Formats: sequence, structure tokens, C-alpha cells
Amino acid sequence: MMTINNSNNLTGNEPANDETYMRRAIELAALGRFTTSPNPNVGCVIVKEGKIIGEGYHHHAGGPHAEVNALNMAGENAKGATVYVTLEPCSHFGKTPPCADALINAGVKRVVAAMQDPNPQVAGRGLHKLVAAGIDVSHGVLMQEAEKLNIGFFKRMRTGFPYIQLKLAASLDGKTALASGESQWITSNASRQDVQNFRAQASAILTTSATVLADDPAMNVRWEALSDEIKAIYPLESLRQPIRIITDSQNRVTPDYKITQLAGECLLARTHSQQEAWQGDVSEILLPTNGKNSSVDLVLLMMQLGKRNINSVWVESGAHFAGALLELGLVDELIIYIAPKILGNDARGLLSISPLSSLSEAPEFTIDSLQQIGPDIRVCLKPRY
Amino acid sequence: MMTINNSNNLTGNEPANDETYMRRAIELAALGRFTTSPNPNVGCVIVKEGKIIGEGYHHHAGGPHAEVNALNMAGENAKGATVYVTLEPCSHFGKTPPCADALINAGVKRVVAAMQDPNPQVAGRGLHKLVAAGIDVSHGVLMQEAEKLNIGFFKRMRTGFPYIQLKLAASLDGKTALASGESQWITSNASRQDVQNFRAQASAILTTSATVLADDPAMNVRWEALSDEIKAIYPLESLRQPIRIITDSQNRVTPDYKITQLAGECLLARTHSQQEAWQGDVSEILLPTNGKNSSVDLVLLMMQLGKRNINSVWVESGAHFAGALLELGLVDELIIYIAPKILGNDARGLLSISPLSSLSEAPEFTIDSLQQIGPDIRVCLKPRY
Repeated sequence: MMTINNSNNLTGNEPANDETYMRRAIELAALGRFTTSPNPNVGCVIVKEGKIIGEGYHHHAGGPHAEVNALNMAGENAKGATVYVTLEPCSHFGKTPPCADALINAGVKRVVAAMQDPNPQVAGRGLHKLVAAGIDVSHGVLMQEAEKLNIGFFKRMRTGFPYIQLKLAASLDGKTALASGESQWITSNASRQDVQNFRAQASAILTTSATVLADDPAMNVRWEALSDEIKAIYPLESLRQPIRIITDSQNRVTPDYKITQLAGECLLARTHSQQEAWQGDVSEILLPTNGKNSSVDLVLLMMQLGKRNINSVWVESGAHFAGALLELGLVDELIIYIAPKILGNDARGLLSISPLSSLSEAPEFTIDSLQQIGPDIRVCLKPRY
Repeated sequence: MMTINNSNNLTGNEPANDETYMRRAIELAALGRFTTSPNPNVGCVIVKEGKIIGEGYHHHAGGPHAEVNALNMAGENAKGATVYVTLEPCSHFGKTPPCADALINAGVKRVVAAMQDPNPQVAGRGLHKLVAAGIDVSHGVLMQEAEKLNIGFFKRMRTGFPYIQLKLAASLDGKTALASGESQWITSNASRQDVQNFRAQASAILTTSATVLADDPAMNVRWEALSDEIKAIYPLESLRQPIRIITDSQNRVTPDYKITQLAGECLLARTHSQQEAWQGDVSEILLPTNGKNSSVDLVLLMMQLGKRNINSVWVESGAHFAGALLELGLVDELIIYIAPKILGNDARGLLSISPLSSLSEAPEFTIDSLQQIGPDIRVCLKPRY
């Protein structure tokens, strides 16, 4: 352990530009954010004599890791170079051979990792393998930024649960639909496009049979609807459809609904099986009820999704399901789109939770970001559990 | 008319630094924003040979105008100087003699006004008086910024109505109180301090007997609660209490309520008179009902407030009154504080309006500003009537 430098305790021995190269590696890693699921986003930069001689990022599961792509670009030149990588190089044989071995074989002199890999299959073994081979190893450079690259993957590695984002949309007075049920559309085109950008980064999109029966939504990624900035780095050929998950305790979802027919995997979370002539790639996941009503147990559902390597879940649902997720403490992030309209007290509310007997019981949040999206407001919040 | 230059049509003849000096005059004008009501905020800068030789602003009604304060500072030196003033100098005898005369008597060479005064007692006469005296006169420099200085005064001069700001506070899901009525406090200390900053700039604060009976609020300006930045320019000795106005069609407000006892004027908007042994400076304004229910006619109320030289009204009320103001088209600006909490669908809603039969009927707004205030969100909106 003594031979691995933790850059959080820099003593002036580190070159001043470690952060510069790591920042570039983080930029590269982010290019994979639409496609790597269930793998983490990783970027790598190889530097020799102050010049970048290799760059790479992980693009999709089964494809080469960031380090291998960067080594391929650097070629023979990698000998004696410094390697910046946003995550500890892997030490185990997965779908590809260990990156630690590849770095050792390439004869690199120094490896700087932003952070250790919390994946129990790695967890420090990659860095130690490098040290054992006589490579100068540091970690902790831009660690916080690197954490953000893989918020879902890291949560799953550490807890077994996916990272859960609950998306809500309402008027200024917290209404989601008229009393009649009319709800299309409260928010603007710009907000709905922004939702597409989030969906495209999620491992899975979760909704309920109630929403499917009410709106027959697609709950997929529509490539045309992504922002131009994203389209530029995420061509249509690479389009990955997040897994669509529907809670359906009463088997109400039938092959007639769009969500079961579209490209990509569709998973029905049910309490009992019922086979149908599905047109799309539909399967069931069977779960007990929650003991309170006939709904599926959501905690068990999330555990099951974690076991299926789902890093992050983007939830779009009605007021009851959203309230239930919040009350169970399952929500990691709340994303609310607020349209500058007023629907009045007769309209339908945003969240059903158990009545509070005191204001001090109200679930509280902290604002993570606040911005205008077209004519609307988007606020991202983290619960203060 | 031909001899007054409108700087919106600059032809290159104006010195490049007119805007610089006018910006300073606007800064000075803003120093009066807590005290000048019912007068406008006005600032003045006198420049000679590229140097500022006089500065002034209007502090309170009855006190000297900005031009006079700046002339006093410049003294004899004002002869041949250029005067920058945020509003057309007055031409009539009010509580003080006309500023146009003072400028002529001082022998200034050039006067640059940000805008003409929409006050029908001035309305171009001030500028023409200067032109007639052989002074070089321009107007239109930073006109939009100058408009913002006196949004209430100008609305009153142009329409007879005060500028009406409706303040609301709610949770993320648009709730203002628990079902039990508990509402103190939804928003943070920081937001409540921010409200004080707004109240301090309003000519009047309007609430309802329902709010008075429910909360016994003070609805005054508490100098200690103002931000340090404001305290620095607005000493306690200058404290002006906005007129407190309460709609009270059923004469439910009695001398027991705090709002009637505190320093400053208190106005009860009633449909019939009822004298009481008031402790404070309380008077009545009698109005017809609105014809729909027994409430006072709010359009007539606002007209009456305009006639009483009230430039701006800051409204803090419950969901019914707020909804009524919005439905009458009386709201010029909506200021919503959103606390990052969830109260759930059982809690009380933000706005009572007539049920909508279609989403296209929903009152819409445009966002004027969006920012975090402590842990909360503040959004200022303008209705799209």
C-alpha cells in the first residue's frame, strides 16, 4: 500500500499537469455514457514527454476497454509513458483480458488512476498488480469528477441497488393533469427533449401498468429527439435502447401496448406469470407483493434489477408510484420539470404520500442544479434521508 | 421637437461615455428605492471636462429632487457642464420648484435624460423648457434600464393602476400548508428575508382578512430582517413602512390584530363602514362588492389605490385571493418561492381558480428570473395575458 500515491495528499512530487490530462480522460470517458451500460464509463490518455500519444474510451460492453484503445493508438511509443485513466485498470479476465496486464506488457512507466474500482472483482487488485510490476502508481486525481461519471455503476457495486432517478413534471402549482385527466402536454418540447437526453443515459426506464394503460407511452429513446450536441457524439448506429420495465402486478399489460412492441428489451414486474403472444422482446420478473397491497415489492424489484447488472433506473410514473418510491427511500435523485402555467386546485396533484401530521415530517431535498429548459424550469434534487 | 436628440437614433454625434455616466445616475437613483414612494426614483450626475462634479438622487417625497442635490454638489462649477438624469427634469411646481428652472439657472450646457416622464404634469414639457432656454438636450440613453427603476410609478402614470406583485410560497408539489392548516414555515429563513427586501420596496402590502384571522401576521418591514447589503444603504432612521391594505368585506378585522396596531398606515378595504377604537393609523376605503360574491371589487380597489398615489402593491394572501387576482388579470408579476420539500396530495394547494376544461385555457407565464435563495428556489414570472 505504501507504494501507491494518493493524490489527495499531494506533497509536490506530482507533476502539475496530472489534472489537465485526467480532465481530458474524463471528457473521453463521458463519450461512452450512452452505450457502456452495464459497464462503467472509462477514459484513458497516454502522455510521453509532455505530449498526448494515445487516447481512448470504453464504448460498449464486450468492446475493448479505454486503456486498450489508448495503447493501440500509442503503439510502441507507450514504452516509458504515463497513463491517465479515470478508473483503476481491471485485473481480471472478463469479456476482455485484464488491462493491468496490457499496461505492464506495453512497458509504461507510470499510471495515474482517478479512483479505485469499487467492483469487488477489482477493488485495488489492478493497482497492486501494476505496483508489483514496478510501475509508479498514483490514484485520487479528480476523484470526485470521476465518481460522477459512473454514479449508477458505483452505487450498484457498493450496494447492489441501481441508482434511481425519479422524473416528475408539473405546473407551477404542482399539478400534472386536469381533473379530466388531460395532461399532454404540461411541459414544453424543450423539456421533453431534455428527458430524452436523460433516458438515453439510463440503463433502464421504469414505469407502471397504470401509466401504460392510461397513455400507451413508448418509454424509449427517440434518436431524432436527442439534442444536436448528443447526436454529434452518439450516431444512430450506436443507439442503445434502455431496458423498459413495467410494474404490472395484475397482468394488465397486453401485447396491444406500444411499450411491448418496440425495439429493445421489455421486462414486466409481476406477482404471477401470464404468457402472451408478445411481438417484442418481453419477459417477466416475478416478485412477491409488498404485503400492504397487491403491488409488487419495490425494494425487491430494485435488488433484482441490480442483480441483472442494471446500473441506473429512470422512472416516469404517476403520483401514486412516485410517492411510494419516495416513501420507501428508494429515490436517489428527483428531476422536476416545472412548466410556467397554473392549473388550479381542481387539477391532479404531483405526489401521493401518506398524510403528514406535522411539517417536520415532510420529505426534504437539497437542490443539485437549477436551470431553465426552454420556457420551463428544471430542478434536480437529492433527498435528505 | 426637432432639437431634442433621441439617443436611440445615435448618429455618432454623442460622446461615447454618455452611457457610462447614465449608468452611474441609475445606480444613484436605485439608492432611493426604499424611500421615494409615491415619487419616482431619480438619479443625476453632472460632468464637466470628463470629470464628475456633482451627484445626487431623490431620497424621499418632499425632499429635494436628484438634479437639485447634484447641482448643490457641483456649485458654480455647473456652468457649462453636462447633466445626466434618469428621468426628464420636472417643469411644474410640486412640493419643490421645477428642476428644469434650476438647471437653466445653473447655466448647464447639455442635459441627457434617460427617458421622458410619463407623468402628465411633465410629459416632455421639462425637456422643451430646457431646449427653449438654449440647452442641448438628448433623451433615450439607457431607457430600458431607467424604465425598470420605476416600474410601479410608470404603470400608475400610464394606466392609473399600481404595479401588482403576487408573492406565493409552496413546496415542490405546489402545497402551501398541511391539511391541518400548519404552514409555518414551508420556506426557509433566507426566503423570508428575501420577502422583506421586496416588501421594503413596495408602496403597499396587500393581504386579506382571511389571512389576518388565520395567522395574525405583521405584514410590515422588519429592518433587522433586511439583507446587510440593503441595511448599508437604508439606515433604520429612514425606514418607511409600506401602507398595509386588507380586504375585509365582512368587517372581520378588529383592533386585536397586530396588523392594525403597528407603525405605519393601515387601510381596510370594506363594503360598509364600521368604526372601532383602533390603536394604530387605521382607515377604511369603501368599495362595492364584485357582483359575484360578497367580496370587494378588486379592480375598483386597485383603481382607488392608484388614485391614492400607490405605485406598487405587494400581495401576500391565500389560494382564493391569489386565484381571483390572477383571473381578473390584475397580476403584473408572480414571485414564487419553492421549498425543496414534499407535502403530498392531501396538503393544501397554491391557487384556486375556476376549473379548466382544457389545458389550452391554463394561465401561462414567462420566466423573468430564476435563482436559488438559500435552500429554496425563487422564480419571478410575468403573465402572458
